[in-house]
Amino acid sequence: MSEYTPLSLQQINSAMEHMAFNHFMGMRVTEVFDDGLTIECDVTPHHFNGDGVVHGGVTATLADSAMGVALVRHFGGKIRAATVEMKINYFRPILGTKISARCKLVRMGSKICVGTVDIYDDAANHAGLALLTYMIIGPRG
Amino acid sequence: MSEYTPLSLQQINSAMEHMAFNHFMGMRVTEVFDDGLTIECDVTPHHFNGDGVVHGGVTATLADSAMGVALVRHFGGKIRAATVEMKINYFRPILGTKISARCKLVRMGSKICVGTVDIYDDAANHAGLALLTYMIIGPRG
Amino acid sequence: MSEYTPLSLQQINSAMEHMAFNHFMGMRVTEVFDDGLTIECDVTPHHFNGDGVVHGGVTATLADSAMGVALVRHFGGKIRAATVEMKINYFRPILGTKISARCKLVRMGSKICVGTVDIYDDAANHAGLALLTYMIIGPRG
Amino acid sequence: MSEYTPLSLQQINSAMEHMAFNHFMGMRVTEVFDDGLTIECDVTPHHFNGDGVVHGGVTATLADSAMGVALVRHFGGKIRAATVEMKINYFRPILGTKISARCKLVRMGSKICVGTVDIYDDAANHAGLALLTYMIIGPRG
Repeated sequence: MSEYTPLSLQQINSAMEHMAFNHFMGMRVTEVFDDGLTIECDVTPHHFNGDGVVHGGVTATLADSAMGVALVRHFGGKIRAATVEMKINYFRPILGTKISARCKLVRMGSKICVGTVDIYDDAANHAGLALLTYMIIGPRG
Repeated sequence: MSEYTPLSLQQINSAMEHMAFNHFMGMRVTEVFDDGLTIECDVTPHHFNGDGVVHGGVTATLADSAMGVALVRHFGGKIRAATVEMKINYFRPILGTKISARCKLVRMGSKICVGTVDIYDDAANHAGLALLTYMIIGPRG
Repeated sequence: MSEYTPLSLQQINSAMEHMAFNHFMGMRVTEVFDDGLTIECDVTPHHFNGDGVVHGGVTATLADSAMGVALVRHFGGKIRAATVEMKINYFRPILGTKISARCKLVRMGSKICVGTVDIYDDAANHAGLALLTYMIIGPRG
Repeated sequence: MSEYTPLSLQQINSAMEHMAFNHFMGMRVTEVFDDGLTIECDVTPHHFNGDGVVHGGVTATLADSAMGVALVRHFGGKIRAATVEMKINYFRPILGTKISARCKLVRMGSKICVGTVDIYDDAANHAGLALLTYMIIGPRG
């Protein structure tokens, strides 16, 4: 049982407004779960690569954000964590107007947290899977 | 010995203008090498995360772009390749005004290409390291 | 719908007898599923590292084997595939007498197959998670 | 400048004798460097997979061992560290009688250490590349 009270959907979306790159990319949390959350990003023409599909960096950003925001929420905004490393597999090109990312916090250690992020396109195709490691830095000022 | 003539610095930067997200993020190739290239990104306040440092997704985008663009250059713009997967380790927060990414193409197979990308901040601190797998899709357009 | 008939539990264990390192390590398939299988390894003192717990290489071997064997089974023994890359997170030291690995085939493309492998110790603790990429080489001899 | 005196080649090989799985697999350190070391493993028929080449788990074991042993050496045997995660790319099948693994410690933080391991077969072909994350646990009893 965690000593922290997870943020509500409204609270975590309010916190997102102060995360510049997430805001810049057009992300929002759409659903929260006991073990994580789902984040979405509207795809714009700015997000394409030279082949006319969503740039892998956009998808990687969504994965990293989903895990980072899931940790902010999990710890009630009271703990600072940082990405140690991220690994992401791409299953198919993303062509539609929206990407969603479902983060599950898989292992919450005292120092290291591990999560997965499943990526879906707007037709609910499974478009990628990430496995991420975060480190707890300390209390958030 | 490759059957392709690598693009020049000017040619690869011209090609970059048609890569929407790379352009949107403010990237340019600054140096080319026999085994890869260096790409840079100006850091703007839009690129920060909630802790006031560069978002991990920005760095991951730079890593993926460095490898993708290095492949476009290597194959003289004639071959299409796609990211199979990317793994990136973050060594330290990035605070400055510029990030650079040096891609080295490590293994060029007939189907699979593997590369590393070293990330540096504007004080030349080693800020991260990525290991990426691309798949050759076929001739470009 | 796959054109291949998956091997039965008995068939895949018979095939395992010709996989030298899997045999050497004491592995067997214990259960098969629509989307993968579970493989187990008896832990012996030979498998320990210098800290008296199971060596990370043993766990990585189990993960790679679980995915490789799941692909042999999925394709009815008719397709040869090779590991492109593997990534594994370790959640806790493994101390007991048995490790099990549950592979799920997540993405079966025409060239690239991706799977996850959850690792458990003999007290059913979640001890690790791997994400692997295989490439289809061609028909098996 | 580290406060620790790195172990000599003889000292680290003596320490290896107490690492059961490394001993079982036939590993030895063959060279030490300022930034890491090289470890070798004699390939035996026990190490093959079902396709008659070295099992990916053997190569992954060598990579994990190279980094673990490089850390034992770096810290003069006085610090305990554990693998957080490992990622390894395989470039080609390994057929010969020996594998070698050159670990470079790339980032030594106060909590997290990152290294690369280049894998070579006995004809000096570049056969793989790993990127690993270790966590410092504390003083070694």
